[in-house]
Amino acid sequence: MDEFDFINSIKQPTYRQSSVIKGIGDDAAVIRQTTQDTVTAVDTFVEGVHFTNVTMEPFHIGYRAVAANVSDLAAMGATPAFYLVSIVIPSSWNKEELNQIYKGMHKMASIHNMDLIGGDTVSGKELTISVTVIGFADKDKARYRSHAAAGDIVFVTGTLGDSRAGLHILENPGTYKDTDYFLNRHRLPEHRVSFSEKLGSLKRVSLNDVSDGIANEANEIAEASKVSLHIEENSIPVSKQFYQFPDKLQYEWKLFGGEDFELLGTVPKHDWERVITAAEGTNTPVTKIGYVSNQTKSDVYIERDGRKKPLFKQGYTHLK
Amino acid sequence: MDEFDFINSIKQPTYRQSSVIKGIGDDAAVIRQTTQDTVTAVDTFVEGVHFTNVTMEPFHIGYRAVAANVSDLAAMGATPAFYLVSIVIPSSWNKEELNQIYKGMHKMASIHNMDLIGGDTVSGKELTISVTVIGFADKDKARYRSHAAAGDIVFVTGTLGDSRAGLHILENPGTYKDTDYFLNRHRLPEHRVSFSEKLGSLKRVSLNDVSDGIANEANEIAEASKVSLHIEENSIPVSKQFYQFPDKLQYEWKLFGGEDFELLGTVPKHDWERVITAAEGTNTPVTKIGYVSNQTKSDVYIERDGRKKPLFKQGYTHLK
Repeated sequence: MDEFDFINSIKQPTYRQSSVIKGIGDDAAVIRQTTQDTVTAVDTFVEGVHFTNVTMEPFHIGYRAVAANVSDLAAMGATPAFYLVSIVIPSSWNKEELNQIYKGMHKMASIHNMDLIGGDTVSGKELTISVTVIGFADKDKARYRSHAAAGDIVFVTGTLGDSRAGLHILENPGTYKDTDYFLNRHRLPEHRVSFSEKLGSLKRVSLNDVSDGIANEANEIAEASKVSLHIEENSIPVSKQFYQFPDKLQYEWKLFGGEDFELLGTVPKHDWERVITAAEGTNTPVTKIGYVSNQTKSDVYIERDGRKKPLFKQGYTHLK
Repeated sequence: MDEFDFINSIKQPTYRQSSVIKGIGDDAAVIRQTTQDTVTAVDTFVEGVHFTNVTMEPFHIGYRAVAANVSDLAAMGATPAFYLVSIVIPSSWNKEELNQIYKGMHKMASIHNMDLIGGDTVSGKELTISVTVIGFADKDKARYRSHAAAGDIVFVTGTLGDSRAGLHILENPGTYKDTDYFLNRHRLPEHRVSFSEKLGSLKRVSLNDVSDGIANEANEIAEASKVSLHIEENSIPVSKQFYQFPDKLQYEWKLFGGEDFELLGTVPKHDWERVITAAEGTNTPVTKIGYVSNQTKSDVYIERDGRKKPLFKQGYTHLK
């Protein structure tokens, strides 16, 4: 397979976004956007670290790689529009598998009419996919993690721990309930762009996407906003069949599991009704799980049966 | 070394670009730019493929990774402003080496007041650096490879083949003339942003940066513009001590060597004087090496002593 043929094979015949002036096919892509702010993030996905041939098929790899980035934009209150894909391809991957990866990316991207406008294709030993996503947010409406304030309600979308449960099932074959549900949550994660967009009219919302587990995300919001977050353990939403797993794993997964790509946020109490309305309008489950106080000794507390303890960061760290 | 500490250590304390609203420290970066077009590209650099510990020290790796992207923007007539770095780090790389990589990136970036506004840091087996660069170009002034027209002059900046000669010296230790010059051309490549910016007043210029050798770049311009390019072999500029290498290698390197990051372009004859002025104003050597004709049987011809033959693409292909 020739590199240039391959690039031609993944090039979109037309672009859906009106702001694209030049997509793939020159030294760089050109975008025109004069009314909104540009929001951008990059996320990298490595074979053997983020996935293996046991946990994901090629289609899932592509889908998940773009979904993680789309989720970052949702957490900023931005609408995704473009993506660039840098891929390192080992010789052991064949053309059909690569096509499946790009099909997964296109599938995810097409949900938001996103256009693939650039990339780089190189050889290497380890399949590595680095996706840069570009989107737009109304001026001064980007949702920062520094926007939480004392008195806010803490909420989360969807259910937590499901992606980690799906990974567990993949790595520990056996008989489980709702297996497909959990596998899909790991391989074809949802994202909350529509819900985040619907919050557009709210003056102040802090948002993080749950990529590293809510313990980590809650700490990031607390640190950036110089407040403390208090989370009621039993309020954390989990899926119907989550209870089939041992209690210890449930606790770990819902707090530290990560990769659920739900949104953790805070809003002033008087805006809570509008969050509910946004959730209903977009078919998004949303749950109140705690509150924000002035900064205290610890950044985040977890409460259960009236007992409170600090909740520290414990996300996966890539560097040891 | 903790991943989060590492990210903090590479975070800029302040940003130089006024268009940055949010840099590192949230789910994505936010940029405000309403008067110019946004230009973006990504380039990936893999240990064992693009460099080894024989050919580059950590500082060079970082410098070169950003330089390649900056060069892509120069080839679009855009001014670089931001970059995002996705890095895959094997456990064999220590903190000091990683700091040197980022020092190299910062060095290159600081030449253009570029800000590091995002990234991703993950573990893996192979050091892989993927840089996304974002810059700005005046509306409708991006320089496309599709803008060449019959009658144009073909020109190139600087000298060609030097980077490949530097690599040869690194891989074949011995006694050479101007060794440092050639090594620097490989490890600390120049880029032609200032020159490209000075061409801003010209109505039509086609540009490609010489990342894959001019044979390849000339073919890309010819294909995109539906014209033929005619290049005079003996006009191709080479450096003073390039003649120390065997004729066969000289020919290969100046046509197919790549990674010189010079600019290959075409302009209407009546604008040639203004190209010269831009070159003089930015201390950029520029050489006329041929002309553009209507499309003929082959896209690119190389001429020597009045004899002409087709010049085909022969750049490095990453996929076999």
